[in-house]
Amino acid sequence: MVVDEGVRALFNPRSIAVIGASRHPGKIGYMILKNILDYGYKGRVYPVNPKADEILGLKAYKRVSEIPDEVDMAVIVVPEKYVLEVAEDAGRKGVKVLVVITSGFAEVGNVEAEEKLVEIARKYGMRVLGPNIFGIAYTPINLNATFGPRDLLKGPIAFISQSGALGIALMGWTIMEEIGVSAIVSMGNMSDIDVVDAAEYLADDPNTKVITIYLEGLKPGTGRRFVEKMRSITRRKPVIVIKAGRSRRGAMAAASHTGSLAGSDQLYSAAFKQSGVLRAYTTDDMFDWARVFATQPLPGGEETIIITNGGGVGVLATDTAEEHSVKLLDPSPGLKEKFRETMPWFGSPKNPVDLTGQAVEENYAKALEVAFESDEIHNIVILYCRTAILDPRSLADTIVEVVKKYGNSKPVVVGMVGGIDTYEAMRKLNQNGIPAYFGAERAVAALAALIKYYRYISKKHG
Amino acid sequence: MVVDEGVRALFNPRSIAVIGASRHPGKIGYMILKNILDYGYKGRVYPVNPKADEILGLKAYKRVSEIPDEVDMAVIVVPEKYVLEVAEDAGRKGVKVLVVITSGFAEVGNVEAEEKLVEIARKYGMRVLGPNIFGIAYTPINLNATFGPRDLLKGPIAFISQSGALGIALMGWTIMEEIGVSAIVSMGNMSDIDVVDAAEYLADDPNTKVITIYLEGLKPGTGRRFVEKMRSITRRKPVIVIKAGRSRRGAMAAASHTGSLAGSDQLYSAAFKQSGVLRAYTTDDMFDWARVFATQPLPGGEETIIITNGGGVGVLATDTAEEHSVKLLDPSPGLKEKFRETMPWFGSPKNPVDLTGQAVEENYAKALEVAFESDEIHNIVILYCRTAILDPRSLADTIVEVVKKYGNSKPVVVGMVGGIDTYEAMRKLNQNGIPAYFGAERAVAALAALIKYYRYISKKHG
Repeated sequence: MVVDEGVRALFNPRSIAVIGASRHPGKIGYMILKNILDYGYKGRVYPVNPKADEILGLKAYKRVSEIPDEVDMAVIVVPEKYVLEVAEDAGRKGVKVLVVITSGFAEVGNVEAEEKLVEIARKYGMRVLGPNIFGIAYTPINLNATFGPRDLLKGPIAFISQSGALGIALMGWTIMEEIGVSAIVSMGNMSDIDVVDAAEYLADDPNTKVITIYLEGLKPGTGRRFVEKMRSITRRKPVIVIKAGRSRRGAMAAASHTGSLAGSDQLYSAAFKQSGVLRAYTTDDMFDWARVFATQPLPGGEETIIITNGGGVGVLATDTAEEHSVKLLDPSPGLKEKFRETMPWFGSPKNPVDLTGQAVEENYAKALEVAFESDEIHNIVILYCRTAILDPRSLADTIVEVVKKYGNSKPVVVGMVGGIDTYEAMRKLNQNGIPAYFGAERAVAALAALIKYYRYISKKHG
Repeated sequence: MVVDEGVRALFNPRSIAVIGASRHPGKIGYMILKNILDYGYKGRVYPVNPKADEILGLKAYKRVSEIPDEVDMAVIVVPEKYVLEVAEDAGRKGVKVLVVITSGFAEVGNVEAEEKLVEIARKYGMRVLGPNIFGIAYTPINLNATFGPRDLLKGPIAFISQSGALGIALMGWTIMEEIGVSAIVSMGNMSDIDVVDAAEYLADDPNTKVITIYLEGLKPGTGRRFVEKMRSITRRKPVIVIKAGRSRRGAMAAASHTGSLAGSDQLYSAAFKQSGVLRAYTTDDMFDWARVFATQPLPGGEETIIITNGGGVGVLATDTAEEHSVKLLDPSPGLKEKFRETMPWFGSPKNPVDLTGQAVEENYAKALEVAFESDEIHNIVILYCRTAILDPRSLADTIVEVVKKYGNSKPVVVGMVGGIDTYEAMRKLNQNGIPAYFGAERAVAALAALIKYYRYISKKHG
């Protein structure tokens, strides 16, 4: 695939100018420059500000065209009335991509200025991200050109957001939840670079395993392109979308918010289905699923086993499995015999495999080994209810050990219920690449997304 | 209503014997005695153990009948083969209720012993909770007669669990989440006291505002009683049920787990609907909703306003509202004018009321005041996305202040997105009796449950 130079410069700029860089903490022009520097970007950085000689220890320039070296990316933070002027100057300088943070364009009815901005960009062969965005981050090169939280964790989940406030708030949330990201892209008004452009680049990015998108609406007339491009992208990588504005009233709210035509939800549903895009309905769900794609292999089939120490969560998991079309294995007599040996006499070797409340680390380890060894089983759900005799943190160690021993050869998800030590255990599991969730339901639903994608990929290529 | 003496003794025993109390930490007979003592139960406590003179500083008795005073409740922790014998002894002593922790009865096919246990109880006029349970807690009298976590927080949510492992794990979870509970009742095999008995008592308990139930299945032939009693209970208090085993395969798992006949899910759906019971589908949902009932007043109507600083979460909230039949107000021109004064010029006074990413405490305070003052509005949803200019903890203080000023006169729920400080803000809100959730969706869904109950109550009494 031929990658557009401007889009490549968006994710891999060799140098960045911050036009509207400021010396005053609290100003967006300060926050973005500081994030770029403090997060460890290795390329050259040039603050541009007509009234300053130096900002954050760097020589400042009056205008981009005065910068002696090449400039790949220009982040624009100046007030709306100066944007066209600095864009023109950037164009003359040979900048490849404009990242226009400034708002006050189409989203407030100022369509004309936005059209002019794109016109200027086209004239000089530049691409435009925005306007009306919080910026872009691409962690493999330590790039955080946003005014959001700084210390993004590195990982294989890319997040493209058409909402600014939600996107920036979710940045902070990923840090707290220890969710590693490869890229965070604020789409804003999508005057030029849109969701599809960003996804297309990320589809071939070796640092990204799964693409998540918060979408409010596509530009009119771009639906067919979305389906065609996404169909090709989803063959390479899973894409999870939240489409907000799916209700009648929500669509109206979305239209007034981003100015995008929300369109009927059935159309979007059809587009997602045709293009193999997975649709989530809450931000929780989207990242729950993404964590499975980020860490687990694609399964070799659909047969799933549930291993539990509590009957109740086993039942809840079973309900969720059936509702999400996760196929629960009926174990063969031989396999049942093997599970029988991992549990007390009053346990159950059926599916859910109930190790009982008496289960300790060894029971889980043995049952997990049986599950990995058996050809009948393709997917594994491990459930745990806090009991007095099994410390969840110790169980987490055991699970990590066994999964490692079998080289992550089958998808594993964990659901746990309990207090603070149970959360510590889940954190430990997640840190070791095993997705763990509060409760049985979320774990099974996340696995269901993986299996759904497996089904889609098998059909496509099979 | 005439309250059964045995059921009253279950929640308000004046004295407790622990039959099978143990000196060995790690033993259930030790854990329960220790929980009873350490959680601060004020009544008399008698350890019973034929081989000990003293346990945890208390004089131990060889058998219940040797205890010189009256004994209201006997907690039985002895091995299954001794249960009938000690039950007989307790009966002779005049014990009012047996709390039978011991397992190995109907749940493993030992139906005969369970029937005999009930027979003995009937002979002496005792009631039985269990067998096969983790115990009972009733926090208003500092009673924690369980082998679960000790430091339950006091509050108005009662939780009845038919699953042992899940129930005990959720005890720990409520502590971590700072969810205050009035009672936690483990139902186990329901040989005598069942979900309806417990709910009926709690319906008249002044310390309980909402009853939550994890249910796997009713005993055969008790469906009609469930509907009749619950119909009366839900007029007094909201009841939220998770019915596990709703799928075909889940029902089979439930049947093998508790031995209860799961029955068709349609029957349960119909029973819940007829009796005004609210049905949740995950434990998360159940407690999300319960927190609204625990703290918020019933609304005066259905008209709901959303106040946000982010368009994206506003759209997600709108979608959720429509999907959960939450009626979003179309504000009158006058009301829109008032909202207009609370925001920057590029905000939106429509519903969602968008204060924009520029919003600070004052904008929220003013908008919230407008919402409380307006007769058009009955329910308030406050949304917040973490921004650089508004600290969520400070916003939490503002919200608490305004809600207090208006005397909690309208239901308020809060949804927030962000990192660790946003969680601190949500915690602060919850501590001050304002239910706060991660994300827009959960907040709106929780409010939807309150409005659904309001609708039910209005119809019943209207």
